[in-house]
Amino acid sequence: MHTDFRYWLPFLTEDVPAALTTPESVARFELKQALPRIAPDMSVTLCRDDSMGEGFRVCRQGNTITITGGEVGLLYGAYRVMMALYAGEKLPADHAQQPKYALRMIDNWDNADGDIERGYSGRSLMFEGGRFDYDPIRLRGLARLMASVGLNVLCINNVNVRNPAHRLIEDWLPQLAEVAAIFRPFGVRLMVSIDYAQPMRHGIDTADPLNERVQAWWNEQCRVVYAAIPDLAGFLVKADSEHRPGPFTYGRNHAEGANMLARALKPFGGNLVWRCFVYNCQQDWRDQVTDRPMAAYQHYVYLDGQFEDNVILQVKNGPFDFQVREPVSPTLLAMPETNLAIEWQLAQEYTGHQIDIYAMMGMWQEVMADLGADKVMAMAAVSNLGRDECIFGHPFAAVNFFGYGLLSWDPDNAAAGDVARLWAKLTYRLDAKDEDTLVGILLESRGAYEKYTAPLGVCWMVVPHEHYGPSPDGYEYQAWGTYHRASRDAVGIDRTAKGTGYAEQYPAELRDRYSSLETCPDELLLWFQRQRYDYVMRDGRTLIQRIYDDHFEGYEWVEAAEKKLTALPLPEADKAIVMERMTRQKKNAREWRDVINSFFYRFSGAEDEKGRPLYL
Amino acid sequence: MHTDFRYWLPFLTEDVPAALTTPESVARFELKQALPRIAPDMSVTLCRDDSMGEGFRVCRQGNTITITGGEVGLLYGAYRVMMALYAGEKLPADHAQQPKYALRMIDNWDNADGDIERGYSGRSLMFEGGRFDYDPIRLRGLARLMASVGLNVLCINNVNVRNPAHRLIEDWLPQLAEVAAIFRPFGVRLMVSIDYAQPMRHGIDTADPLNERVQAWWNEQCRVVYAAIPDLAGFLVKADSEHRPGPFTYGRNHAEGANMLARALKPFGGNLVWRCFVYNCQQDWRDQVTDRPMAAYQHYVYLDGQFEDNVILQVKNGPFDFQVREPVSPTLLAMPETNLAIEWQLAQEYTGHQIDIYAMMGMWQEVMADLGADKVMAMAAVSNLGRDECIFGHPFAAVNFFGYGLLSWDPDNAAAGDVARLWAKLTYRLDAKDEDTLVGILLESRGAYEKYTAPLGVCWMVVPHEHYGPSPDGYEYQAWGTYHRASRDAVGIDRTAKGTGYAEQYPAELRDRYSSLETCPDELLLWFQRQRYDYVMRDGRTLIQRIYDDHFEGYEWVEAAEKKLTALPLPEADKAIVMERMTRQKKNAREWRDVINSFFYRFSGAEDEKGRPLYL
Repeated sequence: MHTDFRYWLPFLTEDVPAALTTPESVARFELKQALPRIAPDMSVTLCRDDSMGEGFRVCRQGNTITITGGEVGLLYGAYRVMMALYAGEKLPADHAQQPKYALRMIDNWDNADGDIERGYSGRSLMFEGGRFDYDPIRLRGLARLMASVGLNVLCINNVNVRNPAHRLIEDWLPQLAEVAAIFRPFGVRLMVSIDYAQPMRHGIDTADPLNERVQAWWNEQCRVVYAAIPDLAGFLVKADSEHRPGPFTYGRNHAEGANMLARALKPFGGNLVWRCFVYNCQQDWRDQVTDRPMAAYQHYVYLDGQFEDNVILQVKNGPFDFQVREPVSPTLLAMPETNLAIEWQLAQEYTGHQIDIYAMMGMWQEVMADLGADKVMAMAAVSNLGRDECIFGHPFAAVNFFGYGLLSWDPDNAAAGDVARLWAKLTYRLDAKDEDTLVGILLESRGAYEKYTAPLGVCWMVVPHEHYGPSPDGYEYQAWGTYHRASRDAVGIDRTAKGTGYAEQYPAELRDRYSSLETCPDELLLWFQRQRYDYVMRDGRTLIQRIYDDHFEGYEWVEAAEKKLTALPLPEADKAIVMERMTRQKKNAREWRDVINSFFYRFSGAEDEKGRPLYL
Repeated sequence: MHTDFRYWLPFLTEDVPAALTTPESVARFELKQALPRIAPDMSVTLCRDDSMGEGFRVCRQGNTITITGGEVGLLYGAYRVMMALYAGEKLPADHAQQPKYALRMIDNWDNADGDIERGYSGRSLMFEGGRFDYDPIRLRGLARLMASVGLNVLCINNVNVRNPAHRLIEDWLPQLAEVAAIFRPFGVRLMVSIDYAQPMRHGIDTADPLNERVQAWWNEQCRVVYAAIPDLAGFLVKADSEHRPGPFTYGRNHAEGANMLARALKPFGGNLVWRCFVYNCQQDWRDQVTDRPMAAYQHYVYLDGQFEDNVILQVKNGPFDFQVREPVSPTLLAMPETNLAIEWQLAQEYTGHQIDIYAMMGMWQEVMADLGADKVMAMAAVSNLGRDECIFGHPFAAVNFFGYGLLSWDPDNAAAGDVARLWAKLTYRLDAKDEDTLVGILLESRGAYEKYTAPLGVCWMVVPHEHYGPSPDGYEYQAWGTYHRASRDAVGIDRTAKGTGYAEQYPAELRDRYSSLETCPDELLLWFQRQRYDYVMRDGRTLIQRIYDDHFEGYEWVEAAEKKLTALPLPEADKAIVMERMTRQKKNAREWRDVINSFFYRFSGAEDEKGRPLYL
């Protein structure tokens, strides 16, 4: 990047020139500028082998490193070698590296007006005022960051396609092609979110996927799009979700809806990524039968095997919506005959708005352990990028983008500790003790945030719409299907077979684990069980005391982290942002602690065993 | 008005011509068009007596009615005579009528951008897009409505003065003078809300009221303003309130702050109306000592007698903020040496957004009975007007504007039933049974709304910011000083001497009435007392059962009212609006009923004695 922030690539001080149009030429440029700085004795040879595609192999003999790979593979290999040399870590193993997943996607939620839905790093890098508006140097810097961790698809606009963003695949195609050309030398292909009802803007009175005029419109439009951008990765669609149009309007199921678009894309090699975030967002809160987390499974699983082979169903990691703690989405475990992508959210919508520190790697590991890496064939992550000076908003939020790249390349080698350590080494040259401090803060941050916010998997006790700060009843009497039903005696939803039956959507092992009080993780207790405040947890504490303890401990962690960060010798620009946000995190954590504790104190009447303050 | 809506003056079909520039000429015009229609045998003589000012006297001899009065008094008398004749009511008594209060004000909360703060009747009648934008015919129609019920001041802009509204007393003066000229023939003078820090827009680095440059700036500016509009009623100021600038910034009290402006206005006969809505809007919710309703008394009462004689302190009717049920503000009872105005809110901010029917006359009567009409020398009311086809939003909201006029003219002759009856007779020619139905709905509407919203004076269980619909904990953990502190055992705030001491701000009679469980009205129980759910009310019901009963009854009233309205032969334009809003009121009432009942059910665990549904 051309700012003070070069993130985990501080050894690259020069921007990649616009004149370089192939990944191989970029690789050579980057190595040439970096090597004299990071390993002056070393030489690197690039050896093209197109049969390897995105893969690469690294061999070292004495002072010569040879990277063999396909064209993009050479670039990936070059970044990995540079990072390893700079960090003093061992080179990528002397065997072929292939990405685990073919599509490693970043999904921008950028609107054409320049606003970003759930964006916490400033305005859009792509759009402003209803038109394209970008700094090509900055986009090239972003492309470099993506390539450095192996990310290869960027969906540039919000899944909620608002006028005039539909023009991206119409009269904005020439500009879209220009943006695609910026990313192409970095092995990054663009994707576009489209409006399912888009034909209706063109005199067709329906968007019914079985209607021939609709099909003809999409067929022709795909031809036009691919004439402009032959390597477009495809379309991303949010249909029949939160008031978006979709096939349900016409009495069609989502296989019928997706396949129509997939067939239009197929001649050009395009993918149709279809989000499965479908639920009733107008639920009556009085209804105790409908259970929102069950919705995706109900809408999709029976369609397994009916999707075209270029359809990818994109399913959020948990069945709700990116809460601090969710079990893996059962839909991901129930569609063996369907291409699936897991969707993460780097944007810290429910996890601190890039004000609070929240490193996500631990969550990914846990979910992937329950899921199994082979259950999905792609990964997507909602972007945490924006136009702020630090494009991740919080300098530490970069670790999530960085780590997500490593995860989507090789989920078996993206342990949270390794990711945090490598990122810290690359980003900041700290001494061992300070580096330990920073890595410790990152690794602990998720647990701390979880402790001071909604307790034990209960979710959603957050300020409506904004999703920052506590509001224990904020969603309780709303139409969003997100209830905790706290009362004077108990809290939580029974989602076992005796309750809503959600747990029955899992394969036996997970079903049994979640359904039994013996084995259900504490952190998911109130997700799966309704429990009395005097319920005795496995460690001997009552539920209410555990809630109190967690909240006091979570806040104490923030106080301690603030002290540690104050002493940490970070670069000035980063430090200023980090400390300013830490002040806000501390205020936020204190509010969460006291509001949640008081909320449960008022219900339960239970005093804290340690006599700490609760407020009536 | 030049629309279908002529409100309570249906006998006036022609607009008042712009050429008429005196109240007397308007009076003659109106009588000339109305009399042939409403009393063809009658003749009316106008007899000017300038010693009577705004007052008038009506005499009837045979078929001749003589109205004697000052110039504006003749107009007031003419409207009263026409309304009485049309309604078939007896003429204003054969003795002099003088208004009880010198200033009978409507306060617009219109912003220069055309938005209205707490406006529920569409956009501003005055402004749009950061400039004046009005229909002179419509403004003349509004002036007629004001004059017909004796209102004589219109403050045309929001007390929260946002750029560019400060220009009203600067380069917008020529246009302000044009608007003043529209209202002048109707006896209505304009007032302007000003920004206390306005001198700081002109190179002065302070707004300190004791600073000579500040004083000189205001002195000169008043000279300029009154040169343009010699009969301007004065300035309205919201200072040191909800982040508005004010004298506190400079360590000055509000007498020092107000008197500086009053002295600048005095040479020109202008009034300085100074709002007393001052409280700490950044309270820590954990703080149980600070009690927001006590704030105005604390800030103002010790200054009694220190204000210039052209200062009027404008105090909201209750000490909180226009809640459904509040006791009279103790500040109004504690400043005998100060000019006071009571401020009502016709805009239904907390009382149903002009969607729900809510006639306010009963509230005014009760407050005035506790206050005593002589405690204040003026009245103000926040406007419920806007650019909608029906300028009151809801056709029935007109009764509040109409009734407020009668109240501010003569509070001893504005009984709720009389006002509703007269308004109904004038507005709709219904047969006796239908008129009874309509009057009944109006008179009962306030009690019904009160029953289905927050219970028994507890206040504030409303969706934050928006203030429509239930959110029982919406303000509970916020900084606004508005708490109910509901717990598993009890709800409400003890504001007696044993609690926050708020009740001690009253004279002995009210203090004793509110402090004793024997005499405190049920409707204010939880305002003044913290009570257990099993507390037995005077009628033998428990508090929790009373809450349940009220909420079920409130909703049932709405269902019944909807049926009655469906059968009521209202004019088509009115009926369409009334029924559409009634559908929304019913939905709103159902949500309130079930959310509030469930909220207290979850705390108390108490079942409804009648077995009606409550939701866990």
